[in-house]
Amino acid sequence: MSKPPTPHPFDAALALSQDTPGHFTGHTSPAYWNMVGPFGGITAATIVRAIMDHPQRLGEPLSLTVNYAGALTEGPFELQVTPVRTNRSTQHWTVTLLQNDPAGLPVVTTTATAVTAARRETWSQSDTPIPAVPAPETLERRVMFKGVEWLSRYDMRPITGPVPRLWDGGGHTSLTQLWMRDEPARPLDFAALASMCDVFFPRVWLRRATQVPAGTVSITVYFHAGSAALAATGSGYLLGQAQAQEFRNGFFDQTAQVWNQAGVMLATSHQVVYFKA
Amino acid sequence: MSKPPTPHPFDAALALSQDTPGHFTGHTSPAYWNMVGPFGGITAATIVRAIMDHPQRLGEPLSLTVNYAGALTEGPFELQVTPVRTNRSTQHWTVTLLQNDPAGLPVVTTTATAVTAARRETWSQSDTPIPAVPAPETLERRVMFKGVEWLSRYDMRPITGPVPRLWDGGGHTSLTQLWMRDEPARPLDFAALASMCDVFFPRVWLRRATQVPAGTVSITVYFHAGSAALAATGSGYLLGQAQAQEFRNGFFDQTAQVWNQAGVMLATSHQVVYFKA
Repeated sequence: MSKPPTPHPFDAALALSQDTPGHFTGHTSPAYWNMVGPFGGITAATIVRAIMDHPQRLGEPLSLTVNYAGALTEGPFELQVTPVRTNRSTQHWTVTLLQNDPAGLPVVTTTATAVTAARRETWSQSDTPIPAVPAPETLERRVMFKGVEWLSRYDMRPITGPVPRLWDGGGHTSLTQLWMRDEPARPLDFAALASMCDVFFPRVWLRRATQVPAGTVSITVYFHAGSAALAATGSGYLLGQAQAQEFRNGFFDQTAQVWNQAGVMLATSHQVVYFKA
Repeated sequence: MSKPPTPHPFDAALALSQDTPGHFTGHTSPAYWNMVGPFGGITAATIVRAIMDHPQRLGEPLSLTVNYAGALTEGPFELQVTPVRTNRSTQHWTVTLLQNDPAGLPVVTTTATAVTAARRETWSQSDTPIPAVPAPETLERRVMFKGVEWLSRYDMRPITGPVPRLWDGGGHTSLTQLWMRDEPARPLDFAALASMCDVFFPRVWLRRATQVPAGTVSITVYFHAGSAALAATGSGYLLGQAQAQEFRNGFFDQTAQVWNQAGVMLATSHQVVYFKA
């Protein structure tokens, strides 16, 4: 008999056990570690996975908001996932992620809300066409910067707006475009799509060409793709585009779009990010 | 002795009583009634008002996500507002809005999360300048359409992308720009700003020139203005701009920006909206 296949690192990071409906336990993953806690995208993905695994879940993810209240520390965590209201075509979720503090008391590290929905065929229209960019196969994979583990979990191919080489304060735009996919390649699902909405390095680094501490406070993802569009995307590259609209008094926003290689808009996303002056 | 001044309709609609910290009761307002429930903006504003009135609140609103789980019915409601985590410069909130169903059992109508934050002077940069548009004084106030009460609570002056006059399926853009302020005029606060992020009629009506049932599922507001910028805005007009990025399978998204007349970006906002084909 052959051994069971080793799970993809993404699935290993999202391994959850559910003791009662909606109560999950998991463990932080060194493979997706950021600087002072897990990569925010893997936390968002964990929440999506938990909702997908809830026995009462109806429909597919439509919107997700994740609020990063405090960095998770290395170790176990628990998730409380509650369907607070189920309608005919939408279902509303609240999620709390908790860890025990050194005294053994539970502390909220993350809150989230989500909506799952039954999608149906309607008039549809894409008003933000995929930008004209070179194909991923013509570009080189680059690691944004060294010493941050989760960056090695993605094949990222910057087109414009890479991490500055010179931190000379000379930035003039916050626009980044890049091709990305899991490394190794993995068929796209809602959890992976949520995670890939958060791969962009802090816009303030690009706009100012200055590296300052920064961290996402809240991210929202709107899923435009249903499972059929995800299946059609498979393990192909996604084009991610991110840009800030306003930097003000210690926080900036970011708007992002994610398309597949066929030019289908899979998700739009927004976040507000803390930065240190 | 003179009578106490009659409150502005907006403040009357937001009247809340707080029996224990974080537990509020209020009542829906006929003045802000939409078609099948309250105007979504007034619900968002009510949540902001409750957070502002919480005795443990620190800092000013930074982000707000409101999920419209079900239409409120005419009558009283209760709000549970909880500061789930307080950090050095940010505080995270969860909010649940409930009404009793005909059997007297509480039902969740709305969920929300919010972050309040201590803002501080930092390097700042506006990357989305206010569009060049005619001044509000040169434009006429128009009521978008008749028979919807809350529309009379705003002075709205469309610049581009008004409600179509001909429902002929001939739409070609989803962009609306308009000047707006409370009617009668009222000094801007965070609650009013949240509400004005939701004044835009459904983008699908404009893009298709077809009037179909539509309703916001989830809205997120990022506040870029602090109280000083709000005070500087006073009761002046705000420029609102809204546009969809993607219409797909019964839902579309909307991105929006709100500036004051001096061109200061006050808020950016996003929502996902249900529509019937």
